[in-house]
Amino acid sequence: MKGRIFSGMRPTGALHIGHLSVIQNWVTLQDQYESYFSIVDLHALTTGYEDKLDFPSLRREIALDWLSVGIDPQKSAIFLQSDVKEHAELHLLFSMFTPLSWLERVPTYKDQIQQLSQQGKELGTYGFLGYPLLMAADILVYKADVVPVGEDQIPHVELCREIARRFNHLYGTAFPEPKALIGKVPLLPGVDGRKMSKSYHNAISLTASPEEIKTRVQQMVTDPARLRKDDPGHPEVCVVHKFHKIYTPEVADIEEKCRAGKVGCVACKRNLAENLEKLISPFRERRSYWEEPGRVEKVLEEGAIRARETTSQTMKEVRHLMGL
Amino acid sequence: MKGRIFSGMRPTGALHIGHLSVIQNWVTLQDQYESYFSIVDLHALTTGYEDKLDFPSLRREIALDWLSVGIDPQKSAIFLQSDVKEHAELHLLFSMFTPLSWLERVPTYKDQIQQLSQQGKELGTYGFLGYPLLMAADILVYKADVVPVGEDQIPHVELCREIARRFNHLYGTAFPEPKALIGKVPLLPGVDGRKMSKSYHNAISLTASPEEIKTRVQQMVTDPARLRKDDPGHPEVCVVHKFHKIYTPEVADIEEKCRAGKVGCVACKRNLAENLEKLISPFRERRSYWEEPGRVEKVLEEGAIRARETTSQTMKEVRHLMGL
Repeated sequence: MKGRIFSGMRPTGALHIGHLSVIQNWVTLQDQYESYFSIVDLHALTTGYEDKLDFPSLRREIALDWLSVGIDPQKSAIFLQSDVKEHAELHLLFSMFTPLSWLERVPTYKDQIQQLSQQGKELGTYGFLGYPLLMAADILVYKADVVPVGEDQIPHVELCREIARRFNHLYGTAFPEPKALIGKVPLLPGVDGRKMSKSYHNAISLTASPEEIKTRVQQMVTDPARLRKDDPGHPEVCVVHKFHKIYTPEVADIEEKCRAGKVGCVACKRNLAENLEKLISPFRERRSYWEEPGRVEKVLEEGAIRARETTSQTMKEVRHLMGL
Repeated sequence: MKGRIFSGMRPTGALHIGHLSVIQNWVTLQDQYESYFSIVDLHALTTGYEDKLDFPSLRREIALDWLSVGIDPQKSAIFLQSDVKEHAELHLLFSMFTPLSWLERVPTYKDQIQQLSQQGKELGTYGFLGYPLLMAADILVYKADVVPVGEDQIPHVELCREIARRFNHLYGTAFPEPKALIGKVPLLPGVDGRKMSKSYHNAISLTASPEEIKTRVQQMVTDPARLRKDDPGHPEVCVVHKFHKIYTPEVADIEEKCRAGKVGCVACKRNLAENLEKLISPFRERRSYWEEPGRVEKVLEEGAIRARETTSQTMKEVRHLMGL
């Protein structure tokens, strides 16, 4: 029997190639696991309840991004969290036996409140405190064995394991203790060398056109000490090189030539742009298929049906064990 | 257009005649309002998550009590809270914009934690803090205008109004601000003069047989200073008299005769027992109808269907306004 994975992303904006490794990891995992990938729109509300987010468009965009990279709706259930009410139901049932202190002690809780308060967001809300509990319900309602997450999410998966143990202890064993599968996320800088972020306008979008790719690569900051083509370069300070390390197989050769002053930045960038084009063009092709009206909607509808088949089974068992 | 009421009771044990006035009030209100009466089993978990409550039997009993007293499933929707998932869903959506401080400041919160901690219950849970928010969702998911409650519940209805205002302000007007309808609950003591409570074994159950009624009335504590039948009585210290004041139309006459030493306690109790029998016998009759296998189940099933018709409309509107 296949194990199960659950993972999700908030629909808060278009994805860029900094997010790619996470989705590519899912693409690999969907062949090994029964997979549930959720667009967690309710989570977006925990920090953005006043943001008037354009959910219909944000959700469609992120679904298109996933499908473009190769999440396959034949293999994986792709769905909106808000389409599966059992997430809310299990969250409420879990709340009954979850000590406030467990939530208050989640390491990210106080940090995030402080950070967001500097952005003018007051997040002393009941829902923001309960966010890791909602995440536990998201995972456990699918009885996921494995949760692919970034390192920052490890404490949340640990809380999820504690919730599973507490339920199993109080009412009888229903849940596995899911394991975090930490994806290696290569740190890609933005074209200006800062953190890649849509809001810094330094990101390469997953939907970038060939022209956009060229422009973005041309904007990449290179070794400032290298004034002439035959000056020896310092790849360790060059943004182009950080991208080559991930997307260019012959990176060792390029590095050698750069240090020896035998390849110029223009040629080096052209090479990278070509490689990024090879990376992104299949995404563009798949995307144009999925962009046809109604296709994404159908994927999400069918995904929600598959998700609910699983969650309704879990909730039946949970209600039975809790005596409801 | 009829207004709407919502009210609920926790299924934590058989009801006694101390609870009667609340249900009789509902019986009157169901002719004036579109009525939703919910057996709030999820609320029973907020304080009893470790109690291994026998929900199937507790829920059936309380439904039978309501039906016996005259809640009419043709007029009112009678249903289990846990059968209508929209309660959990709206609770979760409300949590996003509800300041923790609003919940921490509910006057009963700290008192109850302290009281229950003396009974060995540790209720520093996320769900117990959120209980008044769940109550707000219970009420508002029906867009109830009026909430019949006891005085102790006024702060909860006030919080509910604040939640409605905050939602309407943030996302657009969806909810009325429900008014508390404070039922006059005559304070009936138990037969021993203490608070009437099943756990003190001093209660008269709504299912009492004629024999039980007689026994209970005979156990009632009367004026201890009255040793002989013709001693003048002091009705103000007599449990029997407290019941006469509610259930005996000719109470003024009885009081006069008691003070004059013209009626003995035995006769006075016989009179009360007869009046209680008149009160309870129609309950018994209706109960025996509803006790037939499958009838309560059908009432709850049909009640949940009617409830969900309303809640799904509300949630459609709520999701639309929140942009989901």
